[in-house]
Formats: sequence, structure tokens, C-alpha cells
Amino acid sequence: MTSIEERPSTPSGLRGVVVTSTAIGDVRGDEGFYHYRQYPAVELARTRSFTDVWFLFVHGRLPERDEAAAFAVEVADQRTLPDAVRAALPSIAAAGDRFDPLAGLRTALSLYTAARGLPTTWDAGPQRRRADALAVCAVTPTILAALFRLRHGERIVEPRRDLPDAAHWLYLLTGEEPAPEQARAVEQYLIATIDHGFNASTFTARVVASTGADVVSAVAAAIGAFSGPLHGGAPDRALDALDEIGDGAPEDWVRARIAGGERIMGFGHAVYTTHDPRTALLREVAERLGGPLTARAVDVERRVGSTLAQLKPDHLLYANVEFYAGVVMEQCGIPRSMFTPTFTVSRVVGWCAHVLEQAGERRLIRPSARYVGPPPPAPVPAA
Amino acid sequence: MTSIEERPSTPSGLRGVVVTSTAIGDVRGDEGFYHYRQYPAVELARTRSFTDVWFLFVHGRLPERDEAAAFAVEVADQRTLPDAVRAALPSIAAAGDRFDPLAGLRTALSLYTAARGLPTTWDAGPQRRRADALAVCAVTPTILAALFRLRHGERIVEPRRDLPDAAHWLYLLTGEEPAPEQARAVEQYLIATIDHGFNASTFTARVVASTGADVVSAVAAAIGAFSGPLHGGAPDRALDALDEIGDGAPEDWVRARIAGGERIMGFGHAVYTTHDPRTALLREVAERLGGPLTARAVDVERRVGSTLAQLKPDHLLYANVEFYAGVVMEQCGIPRSMFTPTFTVSRVVGWCAHVLEQAGERRLIRPSARYVGPPPPAPVPAA
Repeated sequence: MTSIEERPSTPSGLRGVVVTSTAIGDVRGDEGFYHYRQYPAVELARTRSFTDVWFLFVHGRLPERDEAAAFAVEVADQRTLPDAVRAALPSIAAAGDRFDPLAGLRTALSLYTAARGLPTTWDAGPQRRRADALAVCAVTPTILAALFRLRHGERIVEPRRDLPDAAHWLYLLTGEEPAPEQARAVEQYLIATIDHGFNASTFTARVVASTGADVVSAVAAAIGAFSGPLHGGAPDRALDALDEIGDGAPEDWVRARIAGGERIMGFGHAVYTTHDPRTALLREVAERLGGPLTARAVDVERRVGSTLAQLKPDHLLYANVEFYAGVVMEQCGIPRSMFTPTFTVSRVVGWCAHVLEQAGERRLIRPSARYVGPPPPAPVPAA
Repeated sequence: MTSIEERPSTPSGLRGVVVTSTAIGDVRGDEGFYHYRQYPAVELARTRSFTDVWFLFVHGRLPERDEAAAFAVEVADQRTLPDAVRAALPSIAAAGDRFDPLAGLRTALSLYTAARGLPTTWDAGPQRRRADALAVCAVTPTILAALFRLRHGERIVEPRRDLPDAAHWLYLLTGEEPAPEQARAVEQYLIATIDHGFNASTFTARVVASTGADVVSAVAAAIGAFSGPLHGGAPDRALDALDEIGDGAPEDWVRARIAGGERIMGFGHAVYTTHDPRTALLREVAERLGGPLTARAVDVERRVGSTLAQLKPDHLLYANVEFYAGVVMEQCGIPRSMFTPTFTVSRVVGWCAHVLEQAGERRLIRPSARYVGPPPPAPVPAA
């Protein structure tokens, strides 16, 4: 057995280390390209429904028309909460001074496991795991919207079976059926954000799944990772930047932030070294919605981009997915505190696909650490 | 940028890959040795209190006597649940047909974050993180015991400030102050199981902490990984084996299981290729407690061990930590369904030490995956 001191070191944070294989999708950061299975994700968002793409994640192929209809029914059947979870939502929503919908989602999903009698391990087999994962994804919007409404003193909107996913999400939040163009805009955002390579929350979900734990254990863990500031993915921050700029010149705002050593929210990405393909899609969606906010965002994107190019010509920063995500969501009536939860509504579908794929491997992900403290064994001093 | 296809592959499941460094402790599987900081863990369990060793995990050194007393007060101050969590416990305990104390703990801790107004990110700084971690560890026994009692139709036992950790745990479970020898036996078990290298739940906690997420996000994730059957650590299984053997010959039982291709619960370990040092410690503890169960366990350990050595001379299996853990806990009046939760009471201290260490690195743990599906980009077929 090789002692750990002799083993080769690996890049910090395992950057670039291949931990497993996946057939779910990938990101090519230097090409500005990402895909779900073999399809460009942006093309799926342009031409398909959320149901179709969700089916693709679950079954590995796009559905025929009747399969998509049957799948939509399967999802709609699972939107309603068990009584025990529903009864707990008011106290979950009320807990604490600060409304934290992701922590609330984790609490409610954790309770959901027991309340629905979900198995706690993968021993139940792949069919059962897939059904559990579908249920967790279907119930996530119900929980998030209910927590939001309860926190704001409003009644829970009962789930319906007759609305497709994005329209249903807006309906749960507002109690009103959205205009078709708003539902479609949110649907395209949701499709574009289901998955994005091996990000930290996805990796977390797979590590937990690798122990043989149940779907909710893995999703609850992913929610925790998702909440970390280094994970990224906070579509409200970019909109905050637009607010900060206000009527001022974007050029001045950028210069002041760069001079202060601050990040430019909505610009730059850890994986993309060129245009983020989600930006072009969401700009398209925002322009279709129109309105003064879109016009201002397009202007700010252009002016911030060229100012950044002057200030940092060797390190080009492009508008990222967050930049237009907030613009689209704001124009569709989603409250700013529900931007990240909206992201979660789609990303949970991606997490679950990874959990199911990982569970099939039946192999623990379990690296090592190098001990660097004082050398043992030291005698234990008397108390 | 190197494309992922050209990158070297790594061992399956990252086995032996060094992901980070730690000064908390390590396991030397081929020497049958593990340590906390520079001290042999077994020696700490033989000579020190749980408070002393908990202090060692938090502060990196053993306490002076007055420091230990002050630390015990700090812990005792945090044992009481906020009203919002306490009020939710009956519904958490009642949810589902099957009592799942670990899922219940995760639910209650997740609610605890909001109820106590814990920060959700590490931005609060190391002092605050350490205080939060201490509170999470202090409240874990309170939650687990309350869930157990509620599930069995009994009143919650109110936490006390005047009992040390192990005695307090037994008191919370039973409502009675334990005999000193039982409290000490459980204390030694708890000390011996705080940490054990880079196991799957510990790694999970560190991955979540690496995103900058809060302590509860990391601990909730670790609880999920801990529940997975590949993680191991189910002290009730070994006792089930003793029950299965009953009055029969252990030799026959082993032969039948090996012939059936089944695992021998309580024997063998993924990391130890020789004696598990925790076994000798816990055998010592069990023998001090005495009683017919200990006598039978010692006899079964010897006879199962020698039968296994005859059947598999090239792959020696030794009794692992689970074997005597159940014997000790049973003799101290801990109900079998609370064996793994008792393990959690100590292990949460280890998880939290790793979370705090990882948070100090401010570096995302985020490896890659190799895409192995059909090659993109394929045209998206019309719906």
C-alpha cells in the first residue's frame, strides 16, 4: 500500500480532475458551447418545451408527442404536497428574521422523504428511484411558491394539473395564469438552466448519491452547496447592478468598481473564456419581451463590455447567464427574492438526473486528504 | 486549455487522490492506527473526557482545566432548542410510517438555521462560524433524543446544563441520570468515533463548505451521505448478527453466510488491513461493563475470526468498530434504533471541525466529469 505522502498531488480543488463519466451533458468553455445529451442546450430552449427537455434528462432521448403528454400527466400528478408537509409550511416559512427560500425548501423536502414514505436508500431499484426523483422535482415549485406566499401573508395557491411547468410556476407564485409570452420566456430560461457541467452543487449531489443514499439526501445536499457564494448563480445580483447604475453612465460605474477591486456582477464566468451561450439566448428572450428594462440592459451590456475591454484588454469579460436572467424574470413578474428559487426549479431536474446516473455506478466517491498537522503519535498529557 | 479528453484519468471514485490537506487527523490503515491532531485517538478515549477532545477538535490543542470548564459551559448554554424548532418536532417525529431519526435531524437542523438566524454563508467570519458549529453540535443530541421520545409517545426530556456530554445524552434519551460507569462507557465510544479520516460524509461536508455555504448546509449534506449504505457505520447490524447466531455455533453461521456470498457484519473495514484499533478499545470498555452479552460477544469474535481465517486465509477480516459498539450501547440502555444516532452525536463534532478547516481555504472543490454520451452537436428534431 502506497503511503499517502508518496502519492502524487492533484490540482487544488481537484480542478480538471476527472472524477467520473457522464452521458448527461457537458460545457465547452473555450467554444462557448454547452449541451444536454447530444443536443445544443440553447437550441433545445429555442425549439422545445420544458416537458420535452425534462423527459430528455430522465429518459436520455426526446419524447414522441404522446410520450410527452403522458410525462406531463405523470409530473402533474405529483405536484400536490402530502398533508404532513403542507401542515409544516407555515412554521417553516415563518422561521427566522430573514426569508431564506432555499433553506426552507431543504427543510420541507427533508420532511417530504418521511411523509411520503420514500425509501432512504437506492436499494429500492432504478424504477423507484426515478419515480422518487420525478416527485421531488414536481413538488419543488409547489414548496417554493407556498413558502414565498406564506411569508408574505398570502394564501397558498393550490397546484393545478392543467398548466405546463413554466406557466404553472408563475401561477403558483401569483395566483394568476400568466400571459403566454411570459410563460414562454420563463420556460426558455428554465430549459437553459437545467444543467451546466459538473458544477459544485451537481458534484455534491453525486457524492451523496455515491454512498447509496436516497434522492432527497442528495438534493438537500446540493441545495446547501447551491447556497454557497462561490457556487455562483444569483440572478438577482446583476439586476442590482442595473439599479446601482441607475441613470448614471455605465462606464463610470465600471471604472469605479474596478478601481475599488470589486467584481462586475453579471460579467465573467469560471468556465467560459468566450461568450456565455446562455447570454445570447436570454438577450433574445428579453428583446422579444421588449420594454424599457430590456432596452437599458442591452445598452448597459454593450457599454460595460467595451469599458471592460479597454480596462482589461488581456482578460475579456462577457455578460454571463445572470445578466439577462434577472431582466427576463423581472419582466415576467417574478419577485426578486424568487430569482434564485426559480433557478432551483430547473436545476433540481439536472441534479436528479446526475443522482440517478451516479446511483447506477454503485461506487463511493471518496478521495483522500494529506495530514499536515504535528506528527503523531504524541503522548497524551494527563488531564 | 487542455480538452477534457486529453486529461489523465484518475482512480475510480478518486480512491487515494489527495484533494486537500488537513491538520485534524488521519487513519493509517496498514498500521491499525488513527489519530486526532498528534494524539492517538484511542489514548484520548482512554484518558480524557469528551469535552477535552471536543475542545481539541475546535481549538487544535487540549484544554487546561479552566478552559475545559469554560468550554463545557459554552456547550451547555447551547443545548436548548429555539421555540420554532421545538414546536416543529412533533410533526417531524410523526411523519411517515418508518422512524428515521437522521432524516428528522436533518429536517430540524435545517429549520434551526432560520430559527436561530444563523448566517447562511461563511462571510460572517471564523469566530461566528465556530460559534455556529458549536451550537449545531450542542443541539444535535437534544433533537435526536426528542424525536425518539416523541415517536414513542413520551414527553421530551428538557436539556440540563449540569451534566457532561455522554451522561447528558443518556439522560435525554431515558429521563434518568445514568450510572457513572455507563456514562463513561458511552463517553469513550463517543470520543473514539468523532473522526476517522476522509470518509464519505466528512468529504461531503467539506465539498459543501468549499462553496462558502453555512455550517448547517454542510452538516445536513453530511447526514445525507452518512445515511448511505456504502458509507458504513451501522452499529446495530453487528448486534443483529449476534441475535442471528443466537444459541447456534458461530462457525456454522459464518460458513452459511460466506457460502451465500453475504457480508459478515461487524467484520472487515475498507481502510484497515489489520486490527481496527477501535475494536480493542471497545472490547476493553465492554469487558469493564461485563455481563453475559459481553462474554458472548468476546466468544463470537474469537470463533468468527478463526473461522474466517480458515475460510479466507489470504484476506484476513478483523472485528470492526461496529462489533463492540452495539454491545457497549446495548448494555448502557441505548435503544437499538438510536445506535446510529449516537454515532452521529459524536461524528457531528468531527464534521464541524472539517467544515471550519475547509471554510478557511476559500477554494471550491470542483472536479470534472468526462462526457461519454452521443457526440454533440446533433440537430434538435422538430417537436
